Parts: sequence; structure tokens; C-alpha cells
Amino acid sequence: MHYDTGGPRRSNSTSQGIGVQSTPYRTAVWEHTARDIMARVKAYVLGLDFGTNSARALIVDPVNGKEIATAVANYPSGQAGIILDRRDPSVARQHPDDWLSSMVKCTKDALKKAKAVKGFKPEGIVGIGVDATASTPLPVDEQGAPLVRQKKFAKNTNALAWLWKDHTSFAEAGEITAAAAREHPEYLAKCGGTYSSEWFWSKALHCIRVAPEVMKAAAAWVEQSDFIPAVITGNKNPAQWKHNVCAAGHKGMYHASWGLPAADFLDRIDPALGDLRRRGTYERAYPSNERAGVLCPEWAAKMGLPAGIPVAVGAIDAHLGAVGAGVKPGSLAKILGTSSCDMMIHPNTSPLPDIPGLCGIVDGSIVPGYFGLEAGQSAVGDIFNWFVNYFDAGEKAHVKLAQEASKLKPGESGLLALDWNNGNRTILVDPRLTGLLVGQTLHTTRAEVYRALIEGSAMGARVIMERLEEYGVKVEEVINCGGIAEKSPLVMQIYADVTGRPMKISRSAQTCALGAAIFGAVVAGSAAGGYDSVEAAQTRMCGLKPKVYNPDAKRHEVHNELFRLYRQLHDAFGTTTYKDSLHNVMKDLLAIREEARGIA
Amino acid sequence: MHYDTGGPRRSNSTSQGIGVQSTPYRTAVWEHTARDIMARVKAYVLGLDFGTNSARALIVDPVNGKEIATAVANYPSGQAGIILDRRDPSVARQHPDDWLSSMVKCTKDALKKAKAVKGFKPEGIVGIGVDATASTPLPVDEQGAPLVRQKKFAKNTNALAWLWKDHTSFAEAGEITAAAAREHPEYLAKCGGTYSSEWFWSKALHCIRVAPEVMKAAAAWVEQSDFIPAVITGNKNPAQWKHNVCAAGHKGMYHASWGLPAADFLDRIDPALGDLRRRGTYERAYPSNERAGVLCPEWAAKMGLPAGIPVAVGAIDAHLGAVGAGVKPGSLAKILGTSSCDMMIHPNTSPLPDIPGLCGIVDGSIVPGYFGLEAGQSAVGDIFNWFVNYFDAGEKAHVKLAQEASKLKPGESGLLALDWNNGNRTILVDPRLTGLLVGQTLHTTRAEVYRALIEGSAMGARVIMERLEEYGVKVEEVINCGGIAEKSPLVMQIYADVTGRPMKISRSAQTCALGAAIFGAVVAGSAAGGYDSVEAAQTRMCGLKPKVYNPDAKRHEVHNELFRLYRQLHDAFGTTTYKDSLHNVMKDLLAIREEARGIA
Repeated sequence: MHYDTGGPRRSNSTSQGIGVQSTPYRTAVWEHTARDIMARVKAYVLGLDFGTNSARALIVDPVNGKEIATAVANYPSGQAGIILDRRDPSVARQHPDDWLSSMVKCTKDALKKAKAVKGFKPEGIVGIGVDATASTPLPVDEQGAPLVRQKKFAKNTNALAWLWKDHTSFAEAGEITAAAAREHPEYLAKCGGTYSSEWFWSKALHCIRVAPEVMKAAAAWVEQSDFIPAVITGNKNPAQWKHNVCAAGHKGMYHASWGLPAADFLDRIDPALGDLRRRGTYERAYPSNERAGVLCPEWAAKMGLPAGIPVAVGAIDAHLGAVGAGVKPGSLAKILGTSSCDMMIHPNTSPLPDIPGLCGIVDGSIVPGYFGLEAGQSAVGDIFNWFVNYFDAGEKAHVKLAQEASKLKPGESGLLALDWNNGNRTILVDPRLTGLLVGQTLHTTRAEVYRALIEGSAMGARVIMERLEEYGVKVEEVINCGGIAEKSPLVMQIYADVTGRPMKISRSAQTCALGAAIFGAVVAGSAAGGYDSVEAAQTRMCGLKPKVYNPDAKRHEVHNELFRLYRQLHDAFGTTTYKDSLHNVMKDLLAIREEARGIA
Repeated sequence: MHYDTGGPRRSNSTSQGIGVQSTPYRTAVWEHTARDIMARVKAYVLGLDFGTNSARALIVDPVNGKEIATAVANYPSGQAGIILDRRDPSVARQHPDDWLSSMVKCTKDALKKAKAVKGFKPEGIVGIGVDATASTPLPVDEQGAPLVRQKKFAKNTNALAWLWKDHTSFAEAGEITAAAAREHPEYLAKCGGTYSSEWFWSKALHCIRVAPEVMKAAAAWVEQSDFIPAVITGNKNPAQWKHNVCAAGHKGMYHASWGLPAADFLDRIDPALGDLRRRGTYERAYPSNERAGVLCPEWAAKMGLPAGIPVAVGAIDAHLGAVGAGVKPGSLAKILGTSSCDMMIHPNTSPLPDIPGLCGIVDGSIVPGYFGLEAGQSAVGDIFNWFVNYFDAGEKAHVKLAQEASKLKPGESGLLALDWNNGNRTILVDPRLTGLLVGQTLHTTRAEVYRALIEGSAMGARVIMERLEEYGVKVEEVINCGGIAEKSPLVMQIYADVTGRPMKISRSAQTCALGAAIFGAVVAGSAAGGYDSVEAAQTRMCGLKPKVYNPDAKRHEVHNELFRLYRQLHDAFGTTTYKDSLHNVMKDLLAIREEARGIA
């Protein structure tokens, strides 16, 4: 046996199963069977990562973090798994059954690959962790089944899951922000001062407004990151689910001291919202070192695993990405994908001010015992992909454009871009902002625009770092992970040059899934071949690549000049700081657009 | 004989030849020969139009304006006839011999085609008019030959012609503006309050600064529109050329009351500039109803024409375009090509205030007896072409994009563009402005951007109209001409919808060449089958197409909202009107760019 059994035995590792009171599968039989098997086979952990377009399964050796097998399955519906509305680009929905079918597929594929590894057996999986996007809520019935499965809601896009990037509820976000500012400023203080249209209550309220029949029929309005663990642990009573503190705290205005927002406060926004709070939500949320339950026979069979494996409480993908990247105090973990999530942790014993514009400071949302700090950019890879898909017909366009763009010097194009094609998450928390490109001449090339979009993205990243440091959270290292960090030396070098900081890359190419696997190891506990703390697991399972992108002093200097202009545009279009600000421009354009499209 | 011999005989029609004192070809022999022939063959007139990328010859029946033959020849050098500098996109030069070889080619081609028309004979050409771009100056030697023909200047791009769209001299333009504002505000008052880098003295000063050896070797620094008539009339003494008031007045700060700017004023800017004024310029300029001379045997032979045909004093292409469009008081003639020129005339007997931002108000520059008003946009077709060439690889991209864009409703894209990719000519007179696009989402399409660029262009056009009317010049009709007016119903409809005015289209597809032909008819005079006034010629030779693009009230209303935002961005980036203006942004980006490219 090679796996680590060291460290104190975690006394509550079995009692955690008891949290799942309602499941009919919580019998000792499987657990005993599982333990029995574990004694005979090498322990592994499984991370299940639900991204924006696909699900991923990752099987990891907890001893050294070695990723022995991984598989991805794309969500089958809509455009890359997203159900759009041609009339309204703010709409982004998802079918919950896509998650489940993709999960089954990628888990089986990963198991198949893992079986080629000597000593691996599915019975060796000692723990499962789950991460998902957020806030991606969906309406479910009394059994926790998606409402959209019912015949009468099958064609109703409002009964689907509302993907995080759905921005239809911007008006409701404004309403909730205003109400909270009046009555409960403490709710806002913990989530950056502005409640976002990407979040739980805005979406619920918009659903109440546009599809009251959906919300009326819903027994609960639940996060994807609670839904998945509940499904696979066979927990068919949403009132008994172990809801995760990560989504609750960052997206739902949950705080340990007050729970979710008060029902009477929500009543005054809309009685239906107060009603939802009373009958379709919960009182307490949990970190991911707690078990949601154990894998139930039904899903164990579907996935090709033994029943009874402990399943961790879910969390948001990016937060577990930070865990997988090896985040520790002083590290900024940047998860660079379609959007970016910029995560830090700060000891919960040390004082921390509220930081305007952050998407939340939540105790235990990343690593138990630490405040989890979330910031991010609403679109990163999405912007580069948009440009390539809409403005370049050629094959291998990213490669070709990156080659040309890498030959350009900073400032050489005369271009400057605001990276707001999908709004601005941090520090402006404003989905009603749009992209901007300035400096075009008659000679401006595609590659120049491509580079300007990357530079704009890097400047957006720099704004976030500066905001964190302004409030006393020192950024001592930056660890990048996600597809872009892996695949684009150009982007990484520009990030280094723009921010003036070395860019490190996480060793794992799938840190979110690795983070989930780490929590799989933690809910397994050291006795079963896992760990008793996240830190212990990270020490063994995380690492960095040898390649570090260091900033070039001369290029950084030019970028400082460009950044001054970026900041000027940022403040002119994004704030009301300036006199005669242009704060209205993008918003008015969107209002005119909606009028033109008949969706005002 | 079908041609009109009516109207009073013009008493000075022959005496005008005397203006060309120096030409050895001004003998009565050819004129008599020519008249003799004219008595026997049907009269036609020839317009020679020198555009940015090509020369065009147009043979017209003066009786009814029927264009019996036309031919175009592209300038052979550089990129579409423009010699660029890869390091510095501000550079745009041209080889003067390209003009001449293309002129010979297209004239011969047109004559060949005309010969298919019954009754046409080259001997029937009774007058030639010439238009060219401006300010497109070039250094010439004592014989008026381009300096670049000399071996030692053959590789020196500063010895080429400096095309109007060369913006390298923006710093010198600022210097001249500042000096004139201090010492001679009257110089500026007639050219919009700001002296442009597109103009004669800025370019001369920049040439003095970057290539003093060129200016030292130059006997004169002459406009293309003076050079061509001088060449074809065989006038080999630049000091004796009949310089045109159109380029002089609009681009050279010439005014009948003071001539060109005073040498001592230029001395204080740079002694070499004062020196140039003294030895390489002229005292008096003439309108195009005057003869520059008559076609000399050398060029007559090359072009396939009889010698002795009267040649009108040159003029700027757009100004003659307005003549060919049938401009009269109250008409705005828009010449829509790579850039736009927006021309009006106003009786010189009626008072007219100075209008800030206009490229000049010059007595006789368009039609003798009227002030010629010039405004314009530095890039129109150039922007659409830039987008198609750099961002769309497909064939027939304009057609495809226009089809898609025409399906979009105003405001539907949420996009707004500033049409400044080549700077702003009117009303900001600022080459150091650049393009801007705002409102991009992750769903923004190519066609949406294409339409936004057209809308931005239309809004730029509207700013000009509003400025003219603000100063009492009522725009009663808009006549469009040029390639875009001919070819793009989408652009014309958007112009109508944005401005709220009907867009009429000139009957002629080549109004600049037609305007030149009209002056050919005027210098021929009625006795020779031409006319004795521009108005008389226009009445017979100009017309409109039946199709008028009328504004749609609903679309206009949406465009009014968008225009309010356009104006807000226009003023924020283009002026210092606003507090906390963004006036620095585009300029700083250009400065950083030049620093990066090592051309600061």
C-alpha cells in the first residue's frame, strides 16, 4: 500500500454521513463493503468538475497528485451546451440532464482509461468531490427533480437551469441592490457592494417576474453545485440537502451570522421571493470538507462505481480550482477559462475589511478556516473566442493570430480595448457594460486587435490585483490555471508584462477537477487513504510547472502608460467618478438595442 | 451640328490663352487648326480626373451631358498607387509619373471607345478640364519636372508627391496653426480655424524638417492640380504656371486679398519655409473657367489628341465633383469615395460668416462668382474597405456584409462607432483621432460591426450638415455622388435615416470627371460648342437619378437617440468641451505607438 495513512484520524469522518438524514441509502452495509475493498486496493479519489460547456472526471492518486485518468463530455444541448435566445443575447440556460448524462459519460470514460493503470480498480475510489458553475440555479420539485423534466415545463426555457452568464436579470439585480442598500447594507458589504445579475436571487426574481408559473411549481430553487451531490447521493428531499457555503456565500448573500437574507426583506422586494425563501431554500450551508452523503446504488451503477463512496458537499468550480492550484495566503489563483475567477484566501482569524467590487468574502468557501475571496472578469477566453469565431474564418485562427500578435511590441498597434464584452464583474460589478476598442486606423490588422483584446484582459486582471492590495490583501504570487494558462504563452507573457508580476502555472491542467478530487480525499479521510485537512492534501497533491513567465521591465513600462489610459476609459465608461462621465453610453446603447429588439 | 451655340459669345475666350506667357506652344497655328476642325466635327469635351488610386478620362457631349466614353487606369506603383511606409502608417506618397502614364493610358482607352460612337472624332474635343486630389504637393525643378526623376532623388520617398492622406506632418500643422493664431488669425478663419496636416504648408514644413536636401533642390513645391495642366500644356516654367485658386484657397491659406501667407510670417516658423514662399510659390491664383493653356504637341501626341485644345486651370477633384453633381446654392454635394467631400456654394455677393471646422470658404473654388465651401470626412469608403480587407477573408464581402447588415434594425446591434480611422477632417480638423467601436458583446457579428461603421460614417456626415446650418447655410438638398452613392443602397438609406434627409444621387457615375469636362466646355466657350458659364453648362450637362432614398421616420427616431450618444463620444474624445474629457486618449495612444515603432 502506497498511500498516506499518516496524520491524526479524523474523528468525524464517518459521522458526517449522518448529515444526510433523509437518504434511504445511508446504511452501513455499503460503507463496510467499501472499507473492506479499500483495504485491499490502492486508494484513488475522483473529482467531478461541471464547467460551462462540459463535465470532466478526474481520477487522482492522493499520494502525489498524479492524475491517472481524465475524460471530458460536452453537454449535448444548445450551442456548446448553452441554450440561447437569438433575440436576446442576455439569455443563457442549460439543461440539467445534460450535466448528468455528461457526468456519467466522462466518469465511465475516465474509469476505462484508469483501468489501464496498474493497480487501479474502481473499488479503489475512496472519495468524490464535486464542483460546478455558479450561480447556476434551477427550479426543482419536491423530490429534487428538475422542473423541466415535467411535460408541461419541457418547452419552457425558464424551467431550465439559469447559467451563471445569463444576464437577463440585470434589472432585478439593481432592485435587490437598492433594497439591500436601504435595509441590509451588511448583505452587500460581503459581496462587493453590488448584487449581480449573475447571482441566485436576481435570477429567482427575474424568473418570478417572467415565468411566475415556474416558480410557483418549484419546491426549491437550487444551485447546480447542490443539485449534483444531492442527485448522486440519492437525496430526494431538497429540504434535507447539504447546501454548500461557497455558492450560498458568494452568490446568495448567505452569511454564517444571519443565514440567507431574511424572508421579510425579500417579501418587500416581491412577496413571491419571500415565499421562495420560506419554502424553497435553507437555513445553513456547509463547506466542502463535509460530506453531502455517499454515492447511492442507482448512480453508482450508472457511473460504474461501487455505491457508498463518500461525496463531498459541492462548491463553485473556480473555488475548487484555487484549491487545486495550491492556493495559500498571499497566492492569487487565477482560473482562466471562458471567464476568469481570481481567488485568494485569508485566515479567518485575521481582520479583513469589506472590499468593494469583490464577488464576496466568505468564510470557508475555498479552504475551511480561511475567508475565501472571489474576484473575476466576466469574459476572458470568451472574448478571444468571439473574435476568432466572428472575425476570422481561417482554421487554427488562435495559433495564427497568436503568432502574429506575439511579434508586436506593446503599444505598437495604438489600440486599447476594454474587456467588457460580457460586462464587468470585478471591480465594477456591472453587467450593463460592453466592449470597447479605440485606436483603429486604416491599417489596423486582425492580429493587432487580437493582441489588444488580450492586453485589455490583462489590464482588467491588473485592476483586480490593485484593488485587493489597496485593501491590504497582498498578492505575493500569481498562479494561473485553466485552458488559457496551459495553452497560450502569449496571454501569459502579456499578463506578466501588464501586471509586472511573474505568472506561475499550476502543474495540473485541470485544477478545478483536482480541487474537487482533493475534497474527495478530505471526505475520505486519512484512514481511507485520503487526508484530514485541505492543507495536508494540497501539500501532496498540488504543484507548479517549472515554466514561469517573468515580466519584461521595458514592456512593463509601456504597459504602465497604456494602463493609465485603460484606467481612464474604465472610469469614464464604468463609473461616475468623472465629471461629464460616459457612464450612460454603454447602458443607453443596450437600452436602445433592447427597444430595437422588442425586449425592453 | 447638334451642339448648342446659343448664349452670348465669350469675349475673353481667346485672350485667356495669353495668360500662359512662357509656353513655346502658344502659337495661333494649332488654335486655328483646331477651330477649323471643330467647324467640321461634332464637339465633345474631355474631363481628366486624378483620384487617389487611379486616373479617369471621360468624354462628354456638352449638349446633353451624355458620357460617351470613359476609361480608368490604376496608378502602377505601391499599394493601389500609394507608396506606404510599413513602419509609419501616416506615410502616403505617390509617384507623379504614375499620374502621367495612367492619364495617357485612360485617355487613349476612352478615345478608342469613343470612336465607336457615330460622329465622334478626337478632333472634336474642344476643351479639357483637369481635377486632382489635394493637397498633394510635390517638389519640382526649374523646368517643373518632378525632383524624384533625378537620379539622386529616385529612392527618396520625400521627393515623391505627398498624397493628401499623408498625415506625417501633424506636428507641423499644429505649429502653423499656433503661429497663424498668434499673428494672422485671418489665415485660419478662412480654413476652419485649424490648419491641417493634409495641407500644403504642413507638408512643405515637414519635408523641410525630414528632408532638407529635397526642399533645397526644389525650384517649386506645387500642387498636383497645377502640375498636370502645366505638363500637358507644355509649360516648363513653374513661375509662370496658372495656379488654381481651389487648392490655393482651401489648402494653402491663399486669399484674393492677401495672396499666399506672407513670407516673413513663414520665416518665423522656419526660414526655409519663408524661402520656399519667396522662390517656389506664386502670387495669384485662378479659377477653372480660366485657361491654363492649350494642349501641347508632345502630350497631344502621347494622348492621341490634336494639339491646341484649351485646357482649364485645374481644381480639386471633389470641387469639380460638386460641379458635376449640379451643385447650386442650397445643395450639399457629397462626393463619397475613400473619404468624403461635402461641398456647397454660396453667392459671393451675400455675407457669410467664418465657419469653424470647415476646410475653407474660397471665392471661386467651385463655381466662379460663388464662395466654395468645403467640408468632409477623412475616411468613408476607406473604413468599409479596411474592415472588409482586414476582417473578412471571403469573396464578395461587401455584398455579403451589406445583405446581412441591411436586415438589422437601427440600434439592434448595440454598437456605436466613431468614424475616425483616418482622423477627423470636419468639424474637428484633427488627424490625431482614431477609430472607436463601443458596445461589443460576445455575440456581436461582423455584419453588425459593418453596419455600425456605416452608421458612424452617416453620423459624421450629419455633424457636418448641422454645423453648416448652425452658421446659416441651409442644406436644402443633398446630392450624393461617387462610388458608394452609386453602389451601396444600404449606405444611402442609412445616410437618409441618420440625417433625416432625402438622399439624391447624381446621374453621372463620375461627377468629378464630369465637372472637369464642364470646365473643358467652359474654356472652349460657346463659340466652339461649349458654354460661356458654369451654370449654363450645368443646366445642360448635369442631372439626378430618379431613385431618391427617403428617410424612414421611425428609423430616424432611433438614430436620433444613437446620434445623441455619438455626439457625446465625439465631444468627449474629440474636444475639450467636457470636464474630464478623454481628449488625450487617442493622442496618447498614437504617441505611445510612435514611441513603440521608433518614429516618435
